[in-house]
Amino acid sequence: MHALVERLYPLCRSITGDGVRATLDIVGEYLPLQRHEVPTGTQVLDWTVPQEWNVRDAYVADATGKRVVDLAASALHVLGYSVPVAATMPLSELRPHLHTLPDHPTWVPYRTSYYRPDWGFCLSQETLDALPEGDYEVRVDSTLADGHLSYAEHVVPGQVADEVIVSCHVCHPALANDNMAGVAVAVFLARELAQRSPWYTYRFVFAPGTIGAITWLARNAERIERVKHGLVLACAGDRGPLTYKRSRRGDAEIDRVLRHVLAASERPHRINEFTPYGYDERQYCSPGFNLGVGSLSRTPNGRYPEYHTSADDLDFVAPEALADTLAVCREAFAVLDRNRRYVNLSPYGEPQLGRRGLYESLGGHADAGQAQLAMLWVLSMSDGTADLLDVAERSGLPFDAVAVAAGALEGAGLIKA
Amino acid sequence: MHALVERLYPLCRSITGDGVRATLDIVGEYLPLQRHEVPTGTQVLDWTVPQEWNVRDAYVADATGKRVVDLAASALHVLGYSVPVAATMPLSELRPHLHTLPDHPTWVPYRTSYYRPDWGFCLSQETLDALPEGDYEVRVDSTLADGHLSYAEHVVPGQVADEVIVSCHVCHPALANDNMAGVAVAVFLARELAQRSPWYTYRFVFAPGTIGAITWLARNAERIERVKHGLVLACAGDRGPLTYKRSRRGDAEIDRVLRHVLAASERPHRINEFTPYGYDERQYCSPGFNLGVGSLSRTPNGRYPEYHTSADDLDFVAPEALADTLAVCREAFAVLDRNRRYVNLSPYGEPQLGRRGLYESLGGHADAGQAQLAMLWVLSMSDGTADLLDVAERSGLPFDAVAVAAGALEGAGLIKA
Amino acid sequence: MHALVERLYPLCRSITGDGVRATLDIVGEYLPLQRHEVPTGTQVLDWTVPQEWNVRDAYVADATGKRVVDLAASALHVLGYSVPVAATMPLSELRPHLHTLPDHPTWVPYRTSYYRPDWGFCLSQETLDALPEGDYEVRVDSTLADGHLSYAEHVVPGQVADEVIVSCHVCHPALANDNMAGVAVAVFLARELAQRSPWYTYRFVFAPGTIGAITWLARNAERIERVKHGLVLACAGDRGPLTYKRSRRGDAEIDRVLRHVLAASERPHRINEFTPYGYDERQYCSPGFNLGVGSLSRTPNGRYPEYHTSADDLDFVAPEALADTLAVCREAFAVLDRNRRYVNLSPYGEPQLGRRGLYESLGGHADAGQAQLAMLWVLSMSDGTADLLDVAERSGLPFDAVAVAAGALEGAGLIKA
Repeated sequence: MHALVERLYPLCRSITGDGVRATLDIVGEYLPLQRHEVPTGTQVLDWTVPQEWNVRDAYVADATGKRVVDLAASALHVLGYSVPVAATMPLSELRPHLHTLPDHPTWVPYRTSYYRPDWGFCLSQETLDALPEGDYEVRVDSTLADGHLSYAEHVVPGQVADEVIVSCHVCHPALANDNMAGVAVAVFLARELAQRSPWYTYRFVFAPGTIGAITWLARNAERIERVKHGLVLACAGDRGPLTYKRSRRGDAEIDRVLRHVLAASERPHRINEFTPYGYDERQYCSPGFNLGVGSLSRTPNGRYPEYHTSADDLDFVAPEALADTLAVCREAFAVLDRNRRYVNLSPYGEPQLGRRGLYESLGGHADAGQAQLAMLWVLSMSDGTADLLDVAERSGLPFDAVAVAAGALEGAGLIKA
Repeated sequence: MHALVERLYPLCRSITGDGVRATLDIVGEYLPLQRHEVPTGTQVLDWTVPQEWNVRDAYVADATGKRVVDLAASALHVLGYSVPVAATMPLSELRPHLHTLPDHPTWVPYRTSYYRPDWGFCLSQETLDALPEGDYEVRVDSTLADGHLSYAEHVVPGQVADEVIVSCHVCHPALANDNMAGVAVAVFLARELAQRSPWYTYRFVFAPGTIGAITWLARNAERIERVKHGLVLACAGDRGPLTYKRSRRGDAEIDRVLRHVLAASERPHRINEFTPYGYDERQYCSPGFNLGVGSLSRTPNGRYPEYHTSADDLDFVAPEALADTLAVCREAFAVLDRNRRYVNLSPYGEPQLGRRGLYESLGGHADAGQAQLAMLWVLSMSDGTADLLDVAERSGLPFDAVAVAAGALEGAGLIKA
Repeated sequence: MHALVERLYPLCRSITGDGVRATLDIVGEYLPLQRHEVPTGTQVLDWTVPQEWNVRDAYVADATGKRVVDLAASALHVLGYSVPVAATMPLSELRPHLHTLPDHPTWVPYRTSYYRPDWGFCLSQETLDALPEGDYEVRVDSTLADGHLSYAEHVVPGQVADEVIVSCHVCHPALANDNMAGVAVAVFLARELAQRSPWYTYRFVFAPGTIGAITWLARNAERIERVKHGLVLACAGDRGPLTYKRSRRGDAEIDRVLRHVLAASERPHRINEFTPYGYDERQYCSPGFNLGVGSLSRTPNGRYPEYHTSADDLDFVAPEALADTLAVCREAFAVLDRNRRYVNLSPYGEPQLGRRGLYESLGGHADAGQAQLAMLWVLSMSDGTADLLDVAERSGLPFDAVAVAAGALEGAGLIKA
């Protein structure tokens, strides 16, 4: 996964343009993708697809012609969606267009101006402080013109049409953890899922933040009710502990699954309540849709100093952290896929498990074995209100044991989903 | 406010009679009052308005004619609702009619016998201990006769007919904190409210305890359903921290408002659950009415040693405590008046705030500003179930910020109440 | 009670057979019993009444004819439901039929094989270790043949037909705490109840574990809906603190009663959530019946090392522990019997208690007395949703005070059940 992050990291992405397309091209080498190009001006929910932005060159050069800020060095150096500019001006006039991080003088910030025409450059405070007064040539060779918004999907077909969406944003330039790490985890997760014939249909959405999710939602109105669960993957590769942010519902099945899996795994982790600020869970969980979509990160957006700066680089993302995030996704979807609500078909008294070969024959032991306890718990709780995850949580038994017990009982005709 | 308490304090009040009228006369100098006189014998709910009690003189005099207990010295000295008596008797015979506080030998207790004909005197244990045996002249020159029960209302008209009632009892003689302090806070609160054109109509009720509230409820049956919220003010001026006692409902809007305002203000305070013992919240919250009426005190009834004794005097009430109680009432009603339940009119995805001038144009900062967060929270939670107070509590944002955000969103046509 | 445990303890019981009958014979000396004999092969819910098992002799004798394991020494020595065997075999062949407790080398385990034909012996590890290799004569002189399953009931008639069942299992041989202690407590509880004309009809069920309760449930289908509450008594005599295990419902009235009584009594105790493993609460609480049946034990099944071993003997059961369990049952049923849900017939304002002689005439005291508070609480909470136990819990007043207040108010026509 880290190698994939390395390939994707340097591209000059924005919410539209060739950087996104190049990103999806690379993802497409790993996964077959369904690509979408939505024209500028298309109405999507309350929004309109904006003009497409592409930038070929952008720099600030000093009086000697030396480029002191240069897009070629990092995609962060140009303000996202900068309008074209070609001018020479004194530093005093240029200064309002220069964005720095005074508290982290060696870092370059990430800044955008998507919805108000502006131009600008991002640079380190050290670089700015070293600039002598005088005239500078500023150049942004960008195009802001009618074009398209690009996004892609990959579907792992399941045994049922009900869907789980896994969504990650692909619009940030030259930031590793945010969000090429999320993209990499999603890619490898999709490949794994394809090999195990999952219960749900899993749909992976690779789209620019906000406008991309809004576009997907606008164009999939008829599919929304099939989306039963979802996960936004973002900031998936730093060395912090895992953080799950609940869906707006707070107790959606995906919320219960992640809480259980993280607690059962005994990993250090945090469970955060939903807030309407973050990534595309904002859109999936908007009150009109209110989908059961949570968000899995390691350190969440805005909670690490390197966030949205040049310090969110390849070193900031750890291969073992990517692997750990992937492992939790794998475990969570393994639970989600097997979680069912059963009804006990023999609810009056306990059914006689012994004559069905489901009960230990020698009686009198102080404790029943885990397999027998799991069957008793499934029988007791299967009144149509509780699912297997409830059984696992209530009984303290591992979900796997509960799922195996349910399988045995279903096989014996004692419960049905 | 303390000056008003000083004027009201010494009057000889009871649940009926001229002391109540004199009290309302003084209140009427501060606020225009609607006065009510309800005849003896009027059936009010399960009760009957009692005979009116007035006392002109009351004393115990020793053999030399010296008054050793004298109404003129303190209105507390006569048992409330004493029937007339004029007799000479030995101390041994008088003793059962003398009420003291052995644990606080210098204090005079407050005692009444509203509903059983009796006579008596209240005095300090020290005074009693100093009385030699021998004959005493006892005299209560009182009238217990058909008359009226007096109470008064002051209404601050609001933008809507829905009402908030503020109720305080005016029946206790020569006790300062209980309840001339509550009366004084109510008076100044009413004057402030009148200057700010409140949303709700605020009705202030100045009435004797229990029978007064019962009379008001009996005579306002058609108004009850307009009473949306209420607050009983009592013991509002001592130096203890504020105490809010919840309504019987426990989670009425007034309960949530007071809890929020007290917590947000970081004042030391207590929130108590409803009990059916206390002041007139007992009547407003009786199960048939079950109004959303809480009670605000500093130290509640019965929880300070000076309660219902001569030590609840003008020194016991602090001007800064009165001001603090008033401030909390002001803050609470400012929240209550602006609290609404909105519906997001653009609930599918986030509406594009940027093109409406409601979103910061420069993107990429680690945190959104408070104003933007408040708008996102209001949009996310406005599904018809949550009100702005819920938004403030859930988001951790100040109620003011949330209310301002809601105003901006309503102005942009994005939400409606 | 300990004397009764002593008489019952040594009998060779199983889920059917003469040991159960002898047990019920002794119980019948204390209480009139309705005895039931249900033929082998009778379908009971998902089960079938098994063949009846009786054992006359069972031993392992060494080459000299000396009995090294002998049923006559303890009823635990034979595997419950052993099929007949008469053979001589070397120790190596015998060994798989010998059950021991290696961790407690001097104790004999209790083992059964009810539903798979097998034979075997239980002995101490020390005895096993001392057996030389060589041939042994093994003999189980048992009968496994069509017969009956035996159980008994005792009914204490109440003022209403609604029933409380008290159930204890009578199938364990030579174990004192499990469950002759439970039987003894039930017997003395029934005798006490008969003397106080209880509100509910109390039905005591003495039946073998699992199959007995299932048989009772199968044969009383028409009675089930009259069973409002129940308690399984098991392990009722050891020196550990009391443990109440909630019904499957978790908040059934019996659960609330036991929680209250145990908390109010300030005994050390534990309240455990329902689990579908334990005693016959498993059957009463199966999801089809889902009765409000909890279980009262001292140390619960499987939670003490002596459980299901020869160390659960007469010394393990303490007379004072039996008395304490009985006392809690007595207190709990005294609460249950008086717990009602009342409706305030005068819900608008407080009714005037004074003119009904229910209120102290002298006003002004800092606190109302407990009796008055209890009346105010009952009036306030009696809106049809709360019962007297809720009132006691919410008010912090003793249940007795609340019940007395309710009686006074009902007598005055102010509330009705």
